[in-house]
Amino acid sequence: MAAKAESREREVKLLSARNDQYGGVIVDINGDEHRPCYLFIISDLLNCALEGAVQGKKGVWIKLPIERVNLVEAAVKKGFWYHHAEPNYLMLMYWIPQSAHTLPANATHRVGIGAFLINHNRESGQYRGTGVWKLPTGVVDEGEDIFAAAVREVKEETGIDSEFVEVLAFRQSHKSFFQKSDLFFVCMLRPLSFDIQKQEHEIEAAKWMPFEEYAAQPFVQKYELLRCIHDICKAKMDGKYTGFSPVPSTSYTVQKSYLYLNTSTAPRRESKL
Amino acid sequence: MAAKAESREREVKLLSARNDQYGGVIVDINGDEHRPCYLFIISDLLNCALEGAVQGKKGVWIKLPIERVNLVEAAVKKGFWYHHAEPNYLMLMYWIPQSAHTLPANATHRVGIGAFLINHNRESGQYRGTGVWKLPTGVVDEGEDIFAAAVREVKEETGIDSEFVEVLAFRQSHKSFFQKSDLFFVCMLRPLSFDIQKQEHEIEAAKWMPFEEYAAQPFVQKYELLRCIHDICKAKMDGKYTGFSPVPSTSYTVQKSYLYLNTSTAPRRESKL
Repeated sequence: MAAKAESREREVKLLSARNDQYGGVIVDINGDEHRPCYLFIISDLLNCALEGAVQGKKGVWIKLPIERVNLVEAAVKKGFWYHHAEPNYLMLMYWIPQSAHTLPANATHRVGIGAFLINHNRESGQYRGTGVWKLPTGVVDEGEDIFAAAVREVKEETGIDSEFVEVLAFRQSHKSFFQKSDLFFVCMLRPLSFDIQKQEHEIEAAKWMPFEEYAAQPFVQKYELLRCIHDICKAKMDGKYTGFSPVPSTSYTVQKSYLYLNTSTAPRRESKL
Repeated sequence: MAAKAESREREVKLLSARNDQYGGVIVDINGDEHRPCYLFIISDLLNCALEGAVQGKKGVWIKLPIERVNLVEAAVKKGFWYHHAEPNYLMLMYWIPQSAHTLPANATHRVGIGAFLINHNRESGQYRGTGVWKLPTGVVDEGEDIFAAAVREVKEETGIDSEFVEVLAFRQSHKSFFQKSDLFFVCMLRPLSFDIQKQEHEIEAAKWMPFEEYAAQPFVQKYELLRCIHDICKAKMDGKYTGFSPVPSTSYTVQKSYLYLNTSTAPRRESKL
């Protein structure tokens, strides 16, 4: 038995395991062809975990690159379940205690932006997609700041360089894609260049358009949400509305992140991008 | 050849397929044991798709419940890749055109809330977790509104019933779990009951605490982010700050969603929860 346990411990060490912050261990099964039979190791790793060889750990994560899809079935049959997946890998999880797991849920929201870009003539930068003039919109990438995504999308759809002013409002909606929820941030930007032109194949045209002309479209008038956003943008143009601006802030980690707040009424804080 | 094509078309019909909004077709492979051999069907479905039998479609989704893990390897070997996974299923995708796919990315953000709950004595509802007094915090569930999550977490951690007032600020941070980003909403709530008590095993204690006492903790003073949030909350208590309140709004779909905005300066809109 001692020899068997020692052998198993050695096999566990063959895997590149590291601790997570939830009392578990993450096993990253990479594409290294020189590793011994992974199928055997997955099976044995779990036995080790159950026998307490992975001391004091509550859970085991296995990250399987898509090239290792042949190991998925074996892991699930051993009691692992899916935690999340990205195009090139699948993360599996095993929870050792009898109690309900306390692991973080998968990501639940996609995040998008819509950009109000107003020039000195009260014209907004618009593009025409399917016959209708629209604000530049887009999806915030994984790891991307909201303000950076707004500037990027404006550039990609109209060719205009701009700087971020503030978040005017945001909307949360549900079941927008499969079961996931959606957060959509309406942003105000200040143009730094003025030569507008369509940038992408799907876009029919891009131009500066009097703001009232945009708002008068039946498409905009039809929906309460768009009318409401229009009212906010108009109030902002008239200097009567304040939204949230990003302020850099450090927290528990050294990592810099941004706090979005109403800087016009908050004490001693200024937006510094 | 005609008979072969007809046979394939029939097999495709055996699957419960429906259109998605991106020019693709979703095949939901459920756990029905009476269906014919799924392994064969996955293989053949793809052939059909490639031959144009799934007319005009650009992509094929396959949703495999975890019980059907035995089909994952076959699908990947046919060229499918992972789109996303939840504990009980894996969604696979195949993109037919040679061009880069235009499908929506997986969810990128987890969403959390922190709750400022202030009573008439300028005391805030706090709980003690690991020796430090903290605001009630928690994760917004999939499909849950931010304001509802804040009320729920306050109830779960302190036993207090409350109503939502507004979002005071929010923070976006990155790589908070695996590669996912995080949006954390600082919310103000008004208590509707006052008998505070700890509700969960992990919580050491819960009490009403003078707001200044909370803010004086070294833990709060140490971090710029917490000091900044403290400043905002104090300004709010003094009637000098306005955040974003939720206003119900309909859009393209019949589905009701909430737009969060500065109702104090926005024209003709009031928060109506």
